[in-house]
Amino acid sequence: MLVEFGATRVLCTASVTEGVPRWRRGSGLGWVTAEYAMLPRATNTRSDRESIKGRVGGRTHEISRLIGRSLRAGIDLKALGENSIVLDCDVLQADGGTRTAAITGAYVALHDAVHWLAARKALTGKPEAVMHRSVAAISVGLIGGEPRLDLCYEEDVAAEVDMNVVCTGTGDFVEVQGTGEAGVFAREQLDALLDLAVLGCLDLAEAQRKALLQ
Amino acid sequence: MLVEFGATRVLCTASVTEGVPRWRRGSGLGWVTAEYAMLPRATNTRSDRESIKGRVGGRTHEISRLIGRSLRAGIDLKALGENSIVLDCDVLQADGGTRTAAITGAYVALHDAVHWLAARKALTGKPEAVMHRSVAAISVGLIGGEPRLDLCYEEDVAAEVDMNVVCTGTGDFVEVQGTGEAGVFAREQLDALLDLAVLGCLDLAEAQRKALLQ
Amino acid sequence: MLVEFGATRVLCTASVTEGVPRWRRGSGLGWVTAEYAMLPRATNTRSDRESIKGRVGGRTHEISRLIGRSLRAGIDLKALGENSIVLDCDVLQADGGTRTAAITGAYVALHDAVHWLAARKALTGKPEAVMHRSVAAISVGLIGGEPRLDLCYEEDVAAEVDMNVVCTGTGDFVEVQGTGEAGVFAREQLDALLDLAVLGCLDLAEAQRKALLQ
Amino acid sequence: MLVEFGATRVLCTASVTEGVPRWRRGSGLGWVTAEYAMLPRATNTRSDRESIKGRVGGRTHEISRLIGRSLRAGIDLKALGENSIVLDCDVLQADGGTRTAAITGAYVALHDAVHWLAARKALTGKPEAVMHRSVAAISVGLIGGEPRLDLCYEEDVAAEVDMNVVCTGTGDFVEVQGTGEAGVFAREQLDALLDLAVLGCLDLAEAQRKALLQ
Amino acid sequence: MLVEFGATRVLCTASVTEGVPRWRRGSGLGWVTAEYAMLPRATNTRSDRESIKGRVGGRTHEISRLIGRSLRAGIDLKALGENSIVLDCDVLQADGGTRTAAITGAYVALHDAVHWLAARKALTGKPEAVMHRSVAAISVGLIGGEPRLDLCYEEDVAAEVDMNVVCTGTGDFVEVQGTGEAGVFAREQLDALLDLAVLGCLDLAEAQRKALLQ
Amino acid sequence: MLVEFGATRVLCTASVTEGVPRWRRGSGLGWVTAEYAMLPRATNTRSDRESIKGRVGGRTHEISRLIGRSLRAGIDLKALGENSIVLDCDVLQADGGTRTAAITGAYVALHDAVHWLAARKALTGKPEAVMHRSVAAISVGLIGGEPRLDLCYEEDVAAEVDMNVVCTGTGDFVEVQGTGEAGVFAREQLDALLDLAVLGCLDLAEAQRKALLQ
Repeated sequence: MLVEFGATRVLCTASVTEGVPRWRRGSGLGWVTAEYAMLPRATNTRSDRESIKGRVGGRTHEISRLIGRSLRAGIDLKALGENSIVLDCDVLQADGGTRTAAITGAYVALHDAVHWLAARKALTGKPEAVMHRSVAAISVGLIGGEPRLDLCYEEDVAAEVDMNVVCTGTGDFVEVQGTGEAGVFAREQLDALLDLAVLGCLDLAEAQRKALLQ
Repeated sequence: MLVEFGATRVLCTASVTEGVPRWRRGSGLGWVTAEYAMLPRATNTRSDRESIKGRVGGRTHEISRLIGRSLRAGIDLKALGENSIVLDCDVLQADGGTRTAAITGAYVALHDAVHWLAARKALTGKPEAVMHRSVAAISVGLIGGEPRLDLCYEEDVAAEVDMNVVCTGTGDFVEVQGTGEAGVFAREQLDALLDLAVLGCLDLAEAQRKALLQ
Repeated sequence: MLVEFGATRVLCTASVTEGVPRWRRGSGLGWVTAEYAMLPRATNTRSDRESIKGRVGGRTHEISRLIGRSLRAGIDLKALGENSIVLDCDVLQADGGTRTAAITGAYVALHDAVHWLAARKALTGKPEAVMHRSVAAISVGLIGGEPRLDLCYEEDVAAEVDMNVVCTGTGDFVEVQGTGEAGVFAREQLDALLDLAVLGCLDLAEAQRKALLQ
Repeated sequence: MLVEFGATRVLCTASVTEGVPRWRRGSGLGWVTAEYAMLPRATNTRSDRESIKGRVGGRTHEISRLIGRSLRAGIDLKALGENSIVLDCDVLQADGGTRTAAITGAYVALHDAVHWLAARKALTGKPEAVMHRSVAAISVGLIGGEPRLDLCYEEDVAAEVDMNVVCTGTGDFVEVQGTGEAGVFAREQLDALLDLAVLGCLDLAEAQRKALLQ
Repeated sequence: MLVEFGATRVLCTASVTEGVPRWRRGSGLGWVTAEYAMLPRATNTRSDRESIKGRVGGRTHEISRLIGRSLRAGIDLKALGENSIVLDCDVLQADGGTRTAAITGAYVALHDAVHWLAARKALTGKPEAVMHRSVAAISVGLIGGEPRLDLCYEEDVAAEVDMNVVCTGTGDFVEVQGTGEAGVFAREQLDALLDLAVLGCLDLAEAQRKALLQ
Repeated sequence: MLVEFGATRVLCTASVTEGVPRWRRGSGLGWVTAEYAMLPRATNTRSDRESIKGRVGGRTHEISRLIGRSLRAGIDLKALGENSIVLDCDVLQADGGTRTAAITGAYVALHDAVHWLAARKALTGKPEAVMHRSVAAISVGLIGGEPRLDLCYEEDVAAEVDMNVVCTGTGDFVEVQGTGEAGVFAREQLDALLDLAVLGCLDLAEAQRKALLQ
């Protein structure tokens, strides 16, 4: 599943393993994790490979954890049964919003994986019960005091406030992360950003539905 | 500086180095970073040392970055001049809210370090200009649908929604991080949590002022 | 530059840096290296990320070194001048012959990078002098005693002898690596494999020429 | 258990796990190890965290091994039964003699842990049989040719000979480590240092007894 | 087993373990691997220890894999039964051709290990069936256009083409690795190098036979 | 320089670099360090390589530090001038006392290196001034209550007390490390061990003098 948001391109795949990690065995619950990474040439200036540096950077870890947490909110781990799904989100080209694109695309890959498990009769519940909420994410920000949706790299750098919002298909929140990169923000600014983000996520939920119909 | 919030105890120290990292030299700007860690016996069950595992975990990285980012929002790096300050936040005992306690305590340690630099005439600006905003943080959450302030460990585990909020002394936002650990949250719930957190942060700002007068 | 050989797909990019590593400074010579990697889901069964394992495996190292060595044979490092080029070869999908596909594709990426440097007048020599030999690579093998060209994954596994050959556009050898995976091979078998590989490389050289004309 | 020797402050805790490492299972013997670490700001100049450097330094390793070895001399591992105890010694503030303070404090923490196990009827022998010897340690040194007890940091740096001695409560030796940091030492000097150290350790044994009565 | 080729000295030992790695259990097949390393002072200029650098370099990995692969070609893993043999090849002094010396010496160490297993009745087949092919290796190269056998370090550096050839005692090929270090090579040059290498390997096979008779 | 003590064989070499590490530049003082390692098959049971484990063990670190410290006691770093010497001690075969054999052998290698520097007129002082004290080391222990000199592996394992003593050629102490591996030791036992060790070291000093005359 290749997601494209403007010039940002993220390859999202889901890999299924029967069984769960040792600490979860016998619980009847499944497990979903994510791993996010960027190819060295995804950005304009080449960055070093984390495999060669011998350690995964803080930013990579943080985003991988965010993706995993967000997708687990959309899935009923009991209905999934003792199956594990790893979501790989590899950024081939980056132009802002790679983490939100990864979440939105990983949802579609996860949906496919769950239906593949359903076809093999490996789920505990029905696939609709497993995928009980759709999940999508978008970035918003304040630029020159104005709320803006889905920032590209240049906007992201210029933004005074940068916020990533993960929503369900019904407009509830899964995760809200707002940072005053270059300054602080007042409550009314926060409110305007949240309004904008929810609308953006609802549009994405619609696009996901269409993609899954194909 | 030892901060105590209930049973949570965090040792916060600031270390000053003249000069800045290579990539920042000649910019006239200072630099502030933070390192967060937990002693192995801070929690009820002993956890392995990250030094022995040979890598810093994702959670540790994420919190260190959050603390650094939050404190940089409170400081004017230009007025600081080319000085570096490392904020060490070591959790001796953990009972929920260690990251927010660390931010709140690190602000006081940072304040002391800036005045120490002022006394040695090593700042570019006046100390009041350097510390232009006070910064404090608190955790809030929804438990049984009810908003709660400053969660202890047991409440944190039980919370459906867990949110860390970093505010200035005037109630503006520096960082907002809300996660639906066990479920999603509606806009009105988010609003109630934000209201509660701002009040909590204003109380902390008052406590910081008192601590700095001593 | 995305190379496709059957179901094998490798993304090859070249990144240029002015200057050379410290040990080479003042020599007047340029430097070319390569880094090869596979996405975790490039193969049928997901493999763990080397960044997470914290070390680059022996196979990855070996292939990266082979690609770098092969491409340096095609370039005049003196005419390149003190510029460094990193060739990133990331396997998106693997079905045998990923290292030979990477070499063949990296040659085209390298050619582009050299002409980009020429346009910026950053070369010591002319671009034709820098790229003085074209380089392409192919895999051959013995299956059931029969020589076969460009093995896919299933053939590769079945092959008694597996050989990677790197040639110039005039059919000279740059590198020859033949391994008896499941048995040894006689001189006449080796000769037949070399004949086949040279023909295959000449075809690839022709395809490279066409790609560069576009 | 927080031990203070002059300005040196070490936090010593004991963590009990039922069972022993795999290589010791079925032997009927318990296991005791120690981990020593210094907070980055324990010394006057901040030192880098070993977790961030990704490896535990030689000095840390050496001291951890010394503490573990010394405490195992005080305990009957057979009477302990198949239980494991980890002794964490974290230096909050360092002013010389951190390793000897750690041993002396860890003995008290170990004693508490053994009695906690006794209360849960998890020992093979009686607690008095398990803790069959008390263990304490002290540093001595030659400064300007004179033997000195319990060196602070400045004395430690100035000492020609630096010696750490671990003794039982009856004045027998568990470990003797003497180093000519800046010069060698004659037999009579060694004898004088040993005399002094034994007296110091007997005083510490008395202090330990008092601490355990509280 | 200490192998000497000119000034090159390699210590080759074989260590036997009953049983095989987990992924191979129950297959009835044995396993043979090799580990190659150089002492820091084996070369004229001291090189850093890989243990201290914390990672095994690409060259070391590559040679270890080559040695293991070559020796497995000489052994019938079914007749070996579920036993594991590790071949350690430590270069005490290096003057070119360390990898080929290691293969040639490791064969003798492997032969001894197999007969030691035979004496303990731990093999599935007879020792002659286990060691069904002898394996030896040699380096050849083109210097000034002339084919040369068994290059010393100075020749190796001067060679335009450098080739390592692993052969059986009957002159069949196990592995062929030829590299144009400083230039490419034509088919007739490759043929001449192969002729020379086969003759060299047959001489080594004879020397191995004599060594094993002692 | 290959040292043999019974079945223990240690290869000791000294490597000279002009200049000193950055932190010592301009001090006029030289620097001496040591690196100790064991080949995997030096012991009866093969041990894993530290390069492959990716970290140097505590024991290796501890011994390397002991060797470096002991040899620095024998050398006048001012007379050495700003030169660095690395002493590599690689154990080819181990049968007890590898660290003391390494110190004794490293002294001879160091002596040679200093005279090599003298011949190139690279010393600040005269070679006799640089090597102002000879250094040798021996292990002693209590077995069945009896003091024993130069323990082999079986004796080492059986010893109740194990002590390593480093002495100068005139019988002064450089380092004393005594451990009650299986029990504690009384003052008179310690005295007897020290007497024995000094005599042993004086014999070794004589042997070193002879080796250097050759």
